[in-house]
Amino acid sequence: MHDAVVNGVPALHLDPSTDAVALTRVEHTPAAESFADRHIGPRGRETAQMLSVVGYRSLDALVDAAVPASIRTDRPLDLPAARSEEEVLAALRTIAGRNRVMTQMIGQGYSDTVTPAVIRRNVLESPAWYTAYTPYQPEISQGRLEALLNFQTMVTDLTGLDLANASLLDEATAVAEAVALMWRAARGKAGTVVLDADLFGQSLAVTLGRAEAIGLPVVVADLTDGLPEIEGDLIGVVLQQVGASGRVRDLRPVIDAAKARGGLVTVAADLLALTLLTSPGELGADVSVGSAQRFGVPLFGGGPHAAFMAVRKGLERMLPGRLVGVSIDADGARAYRLALQTREQHIRREKATSNICTAQALLAIVASMYAVYHGPDGLKAIAERVRGFAGAVAELLGENGVQVEHDLFFDTVRTVVPGLAHDVVAAGARHGVNLWAPDADHVQISCDETTDPDDVAAVLLAFVEARATTVDVDQDGASIGFFHTGTGAEPLPAWAARTTAYLQHPVFHLHRSETAMLRYLRRLSDKDLALDRTMIPLGSCTMKLNATAEMEPISWPEFATIHPYAPADQTQGYAELVTQLQDWLAEITGYAAVSVQPNAGSQGELAGLLAIHGYHASRGDTQRDVCLIPASAHGTNAASAALAGMRVVVVATAGDGSIDLDDLRAKLETHGEQVAAIMITYPSTHGVYEEGVRTVCDLVHEAGGQVYIDGANLNALVGLARPAELGGDVSHLNLHKTFCIPHGGGGPGVGPVAVAAHLAPFLPGDPTPTATREGTPPVSAAPWGSAGILPISWAYVALMGPDGLKAATETAVLAANYLATRLSGHFPVLYTGPNGLVAHECILDLRDITKETGVTAEDVAKRLMDYGFHAPTLSFPVAGTLMVEPTESEDLAELDRFVDALVAIRGEIDAVQAGRWPLADSPLRNAPHTAAALSADVWDHAYPRELAAFPVAALREGKYWPPVRRIDGAHGDRHLVCSCPPIEAYAE
Amino acid sequence: MHDAVVNGVPALHLDPSTDAVALTRVEHTPAAESFADRHIGPRGRETAQMLSVVGYRSLDALVDAAVPASIRTDRPLDLPAARSEEEVLAALRTIAGRNRVMTQMIGQGYSDTVTPAVIRRNVLESPAWYTAYTPYQPEISQGRLEALLNFQTMVTDLTGLDLANASLLDEATAVAEAVALMWRAARGKAGTVVLDADLFGQSLAVTLGRAEAIGLPVVVADLTDGLPEIEGDLIGVVLQQVGASGRVRDLRPVIDAAKARGGLVTVAADLLALTLLTSPGELGADVSVGSAQRFGVPLFGGGPHAAFMAVRKGLERMLPGRLVGVSIDADGARAYRLALQTREQHIRREKATSNICTAQALLAIVASMYAVYHGPDGLKAIAERVRGFAGAVAELLGENGVQVEHDLFFDTVRTVVPGLAHDVVAAGARHGVNLWAPDADHVQISCDETTDPDDVAAVLLAFVEARATTVDVDQDGASIGFFHTGTGAEPLPAWAARTTAYLQHPVFHLHRSETAMLRYLRRLSDKDLALDRTMIPLGSCTMKLNATAEMEPISWPEFATIHPYAPADQTQGYAELVTQLQDWLAEITGYAAVSVQPNAGSQGELAGLLAIHGYHASRGDTQRDVCLIPASAHGTNAASAALAGMRVVVVATAGDGSIDLDDLRAKLETHGEQVAAIMITYPSTHGVYEEGVRTVCDLVHEAGGQVYIDGANLNALVGLARPAELGGDVSHLNLHKTFCIPHGGGGPGVGPVAVAAHLAPFLPGDPTPTATREGTPPVSAAPWGSAGILPISWAYVALMGPDGLKAATETAVLAANYLATRLSGHFPVLYTGPNGLVAHECILDLRDITKETGVTAEDVAKRLMDYGFHAPTLSFPVAGTLMVEPTESEDLAELDRFVDALVAIRGEIDAVQAGRWPLADSPLRNAPHTAAALSADVWDHAYPRELAAFPVAALREGKYWPPVRRIDGAHGDRHLVCSCPPIEAYAE
Repeated sequence: MHDAVVNGVPALHLDPSTDAVALTRVEHTPAAESFADRHIGPRGRETAQMLSVVGYRSLDALVDAAVPASIRTDRPLDLPAARSEEEVLAALRTIAGRNRVMTQMIGQGYSDTVTPAVIRRNVLESPAWYTAYTPYQPEISQGRLEALLNFQTMVTDLTGLDLANASLLDEATAVAEAVALMWRAARGKAGTVVLDADLFGQSLAVTLGRAEAIGLPVVVADLTDGLPEIEGDLIGVVLQQVGASGRVRDLRPVIDAAKARGGLVTVAADLLALTLLTSPGELGADVSVGSAQRFGVPLFGGGPHAAFMAVRKGLERMLPGRLVGVSIDADGARAYRLALQTREQHIRREKATSNICTAQALLAIVASMYAVYHGPDGLKAIAERVRGFAGAVAELLGENGVQVEHDLFFDTVRTVVPGLAHDVVAAGARHGVNLWAPDADHVQISCDETTDPDDVAAVLLAFVEARATTVDVDQDGASIGFFHTGTGAEPLPAWAARTTAYLQHPVFHLHRSETAMLRYLRRLSDKDLALDRTMIPLGSCTMKLNATAEMEPISWPEFATIHPYAPADQTQGYAELVTQLQDWLAEITGYAAVSVQPNAGSQGELAGLLAIHGYHASRGDTQRDVCLIPASAHGTNAASAALAGMRVVVVATAGDGSIDLDDLRAKLETHGEQVAAIMITYPSTHGVYEEGVRTVCDLVHEAGGQVYIDGANLNALVGLARPAELGGDVSHLNLHKTFCIPHGGGGPGVGPVAVAAHLAPFLPGDPTPTATREGTPPVSAAPWGSAGILPISWAYVALMGPDGLKAATETAVLAANYLATRLSGHFPVLYTGPNGLVAHECILDLRDITKETGVTAEDVAKRLMDYGFHAPTLSFPVAGTLMVEPTESEDLAELDRFVDALVAIRGEIDAVQAGRWPLADSPLRNAPHTAAALSADVWDHAYPRELAAFPVAALREGKYWPPVRRIDGAHGDRHLVCSCPPIEAYAE
Repeated sequence: MHDAVVNGVPALHLDPSTDAVALTRVEHTPAAESFADRHIGPRGRETAQMLSVVGYRSLDALVDAAVPASIRTDRPLDLPAARSEEEVLAALRTIAGRNRVMTQMIGQGYSDTVTPAVIRRNVLESPAWYTAYTPYQPEISQGRLEALLNFQTMVTDLTGLDLANASLLDEATAVAEAVALMWRAARGKAGTVVLDADLFGQSLAVTLGRAEAIGLPVVVADLTDGLPEIEGDLIGVVLQQVGASGRVRDLRPVIDAAKARGGLVTVAADLLALTLLTSPGELGADVSVGSAQRFGVPLFGGGPHAAFMAVRKGLERMLPGRLVGVSIDADGARAYRLALQTREQHIRREKATSNICTAQALLAIVASMYAVYHGPDGLKAIAERVRGFAGAVAELLGENGVQVEHDLFFDTVRTVVPGLAHDVVAAGARHGVNLWAPDADHVQISCDETTDPDDVAAVLLAFVEARATTVDVDQDGASIGFFHTGTGAEPLPAWAARTTAYLQHPVFHLHRSETAMLRYLRRLSDKDLALDRTMIPLGSCTMKLNATAEMEPISWPEFATIHPYAPADQTQGYAELVTQLQDWLAEITGYAAVSVQPNAGSQGELAGLLAIHGYHASRGDTQRDVCLIPASAHGTNAASAALAGMRVVVVATAGDGSIDLDDLRAKLETHGEQVAAIMITYPSTHGVYEEGVRTVCDLVHEAGGQVYIDGANLNALVGLARPAELGGDVSHLNLHKTFCIPHGGGGPGVGPVAVAAHLAPFLPGDPTPTATREGTPPVSAAPWGSAGILPISWAYVALMGPDGLKAATETAVLAANYLATRLSGHFPVLYTGPNGLVAHECILDLRDITKETGVTAEDVAKRLMDYGFHAPTLSFPVAGTLMVEPTESEDLAELDRFVDALVAIRGEIDAVQAGRWPLADSPLRNAPHTAAALSADVWDHAYPRELAAFPVAALREGKYWPPVRRIDGAHGDRHLVCSCPPIEAYAE
């Protein structure tokens, strides 16, 4: 009707069909507080006070001193001006409104599901859960570790295997990881992996791409009549239990044949179907993978969801991803922690065949709680209802002359409709139902937990309207028969029906009322320290504010209930959001093109390296397979390079932490035309702005290599410098670091890949099963990866605007330098850059202290828990140090609280050194202290209780109590238990 | 297009204009778990186990034994069948969609506002806050007590007075309470109260009704030119600082005149305006009232919102409502608790002139956090922006020939548009803007925090379209001038401009980043025990599950942003919801009509008694003014009777807890034709189903009286019996007890009044300012009271269905009897009914134990905190007892945990009795124990630390730590401090 433009621009236009008036100008006072004022912690006098401690008169002056002019950009961010929270939420509502909420019967690994409201509100929407970090510090992570252990127990039980990890990124990458695992297990044996042609199309696309990159021979075959002939040995087979076509068949013959030929067997399975069908373990599989999405995790337009992998005993040390295990603490009490972590170090090596680092913890927790809330009987009832509806669809269509292809199916009915498939799908869409046409002659209908008789009726209507049934469509009001759903499904044949029990552990029986579930969630989250209680000053992880206004939209049905393969005309909202976000990220990084498809940093790295690989190949430079990686690089870099088929060559680090240019020159000399790329991080993981970065880029470019700049530390650059302008050809970003997606207790992450124009043609391809397969393969199962959480980063950029983003970077630098300045008298700061300043993080060097006193960086990390803090990054990138990154979101009070804690801890170290307490019985070595230990009748320590409990007075105002004492990780690895311990164990 | 009906009913109809098919029958399996299974705690074997402990074979058998046949209904609940959570949420979305979200510029005490997202998610949507109980047990309520103290500090600062309470129900009742306060302060002096004619219409309507009921002479007068002549003394004056007309005028002349005549002065004020305008305290007011709604609390279609009252020193003991004060705990540490609680007991007496009991704690907390988040500078900036927009509206309209009535205003512009007002309002609505026409000749436009230039443009358009301006409406695209808002408002005249500071306390400066606010909210809520961590077995308070699915809709804009006086065509959704809920409540209670207007139980009582009063008056029985009240009645009953102008006569209680029929007969004899009513509670507060209730009703009816049945214990009746069938003529219900509205830490509550047909004409009238004033006066400021939270109760009834509701009642009875059976060997159960059974709650009688050991019920209540429990109701209705109500939502594990705690405590009592510890140094008397006390270096108690901390092993799995030790209430009352202590106090 009218549109007024604010802030001094010509203002009012009226619909000319009505009375017409125009206001020439409107000016108004902006909102009292901008969002940037809320996102950035220090304000007004606090900023000035911090600057004066660091010794600068203004933020500009500090930044000019800290950031070399040579790397600064001269082009300010060209982004839309900051908007208020209300404006951004309104804009997102408009965008969301362009997505169409439909009944999703597409299937292909994505089913609609009901997220129990109590889980939605108290996990997905609870800062206590979503702002937590990965549980590397297990003593303050017992709640989410227990939840993840429940997830592992659920997966092992349902798959009938021995051990499951704590989630993978998506089912397609899980299949690829299974292939890699089988390959590793073959220990170098030459041979082939056979993939079931009835795997989901996206699983095939991702897996074939990954196999091709590392040169694994893989064959896709129809396994209906057994294994195909292959040359050489059989490494393994991947079967899909409920096929992409919906078919359920007896896998035993193929499994037996594969085993007879010495191969391993992976079965991709559907967790819900496994409540009814014989489990992969019982069928003889060695590995099972799949997605836990339909256990209460919204479709989210493709993700994030938790995939899973379970293995037979003997393969546990080959398992990629994180594994939660049971161990004991210093008092012998049961305690959880990540198990076999040395295994995780393996992925950092050049020989790695997995680069998985981030998991999907938050979504795995939702899925596990869904199982806890429903219990085995509830899950089975849901599965039977789903199967019943599918049966009803088949019966109804069959009775009306539609050919149903498979006799046995779980949730998906495949019909034969020669030439009419797209008509049927179009008619379905008109009735609010999305069906799936894998080709022009077939339509598939997948039922799920939300299916109701209305949906079945709509399916029938679609077939009627497309003239795909024999029913007399002109007969007004005709009855076309009776159908029943759920109750009357035929019993499963004996070979298919599951006879073994699952989810017998009490946890799947104790929390079945909403009250009980609510309290269980609260009790678990209370055990953990997340951003809602303390700063998490984790160097290289950028734990900043995850604002509520950014988080709220992800629950909206218009974002949450979209199927990743829904037709484009239904996903215009997502398309708009993704395009804008990609454009904004391109502007921020200076690159020409961005793809948001990679759903973790590791996938972003891989996508970037595949783009480089594709680029060289397109120019005939197929010999370029060396990836140079500095010694200080992030661990995943080398693994990603290996996955991209590259050889890793390490470049030395100079004494000041920068790249050793002489060594670089030497390596370039040595490897010459074989150099494909260098992977660097900027600012480096040493926390300084290195002046020589442009030289590094130039040298590599001169050698014909490409420059990959890891975006992990982008929070030090936004608005000040652009990776592309430094000389980068490609970067991946971590939206869960710089762009406010919460860490979720260990995922989700989003790792977009950004490339210069010459690499744009080599961005990841479309994983949609019906897409054409050409160009670079996809790296994730969904076209836009974890689309469902992209509104968070979109909102962050929209809320901050160009000035806010730059101010955030500057404040992050100020905060790091404030901490470095205040702490350097107590703990040496290892590296500094220009003018003795650090970038956005700093490394506290404990090595001399350890040498002199025996107190380790780990002791300090654990003692910080007693002070209510999450430890900084421990022993990365330099062993024996703590890397501290405060981010811009912490205000001065919190920074000072952290300084106070570290200063007090330094005093404790001095007391040990002075011999006041023996190290072995010091508050440092005994940390963390539980309330139980502190209120024990007997206290025979060398130091008093109050010093242990309340070393600084502020703790008396409210203290976090670690639920366990220091955990013995080695004990747990020696006695590996990775599912819920039996109830008797709790009674101990 | 089509509609399929599920569950065996004929199914599918197609739009005949398209291809037509009909399915004859659809059957499907219902969802695996019904909502009732989630709401009700015990399930399957648990129920059987509990029954076997109580000694019954089935729930039916137990209920038949517990509930006298004479009171059982023979008519099952005629309510819609239970629906799933998804179905109910979908139905509510449809209903919500019938409300129209508009720009609300109606004003009249209700302004749109921005609830900061971090506060919305972490207070309004956080179970830790909304499931908490009233802070009667202060040791486990320190978080919300601090938040309420912030509220009081905010109100005292802004009003310039000395003391504020912790909220009242709404501004209209606050005005009525102020009138009553001035009356009480006059100590019986005959005289008159003068009300400003420029008070909000709803304030006048409610206040006049209340004054009339108790016979207070009140005059409404235009005070522009001073006080009117009145007969006799002046008791007081109520002025409105920003008038209903929007006018801001100098109140000093009237205030000075009133004081000269010995009257007190109340100023109704707008908290946001007070950041700019001279405060009531500085103007000379004794009392200030108003609403805190615009401080971040959604419009909610009328409520709930927090009103406030502040008073000058000397009036604090007259203050109605709750008052938080500062005191110390057993260790001398600062601690908060409700102050002057003996004052609250006053309201229970017959001479009471206030019956306020529930406050609006949750909303007061939201408002206080809004002030904490914005700080004084932020609030002032918002106020200036609002005033700027109002100025722009006035300027723009004035320039275009519209007469603006007042020179000085804050947010509301009043225009003179003879005969055109309704046209302008209608035109505004067409442009999405609601304006206010107090009559046919005036239109008012109220600006608020959300006003933007678009809204101003729409206002102008409305005037243009209604031909109410001189602008040439036919001139296409004409420019009608420049306007600016916010920045350019004229300075206020000196007499109006505030010069004093406010909100100087650090709490209004420390939590200004979102991260800091998030952590402050978490820190406070962690101090408190709410339903999300433990059962709250409060007799008579029915603390049951507040399900997430019930809670979610209250945040939807279609419910949250509706103005209570919006036109009926915009509130069809609310109308439908209210009508259905009223019908359902009528069906459940057996009454003919229900009004949801009363926004607390106290107001429901008043409304019910006013209906009785009106009924008697309509029959000429004006002499009927005696209200019979049993000794065991709820405290508010007597106060409500007094407020309804009735005299209270107490009826004795027999030894078995029932009403003494002989005494009743005697009282009826004595008071004969003066008997207006009896107020009884059923089941009585003694927790038993009394057989004689029908006799009581008959006797009173025979005497010509009406029977009021207090609905506090309706959770023991739903589906089993109906108050109306027992003989009741009227009841009020507590939706925050039986119907799942959360207690919010001390409000909101909703207290609908339900009446038999003959009383229906006397239900509360419409408070809308433009409504005609006839019949019974309104009791709340909004037509539907706290409309915004009615979706909770609607959802509960829809989710449970008739069978679920009945099962809930039966399970509540089972749970109470299970506890009574298991505990009676340890603590005597005071009253039992038929077959030795209790109803839905039971009273544990500590009196003999106290006599023998000295251990009091309070000791047990405080010691329960160490076990992680909220205490049962303490010393009500019988001093020295604990009244336990488990509700149906607690599962067996939680009931057993409670039993274990009480049995262990009984063991501790025995130890005291056996002389193992002296009572004065026992874990009972020293309870609760803080972590600080337990980890102190020195422990010189007679009992060990571990016994104090972990008296049962389960506590080691996760323990709640009380933040303070037992609080010395008397100390606080002797040294009354009711606002935030200075920062130095925190350093102690």
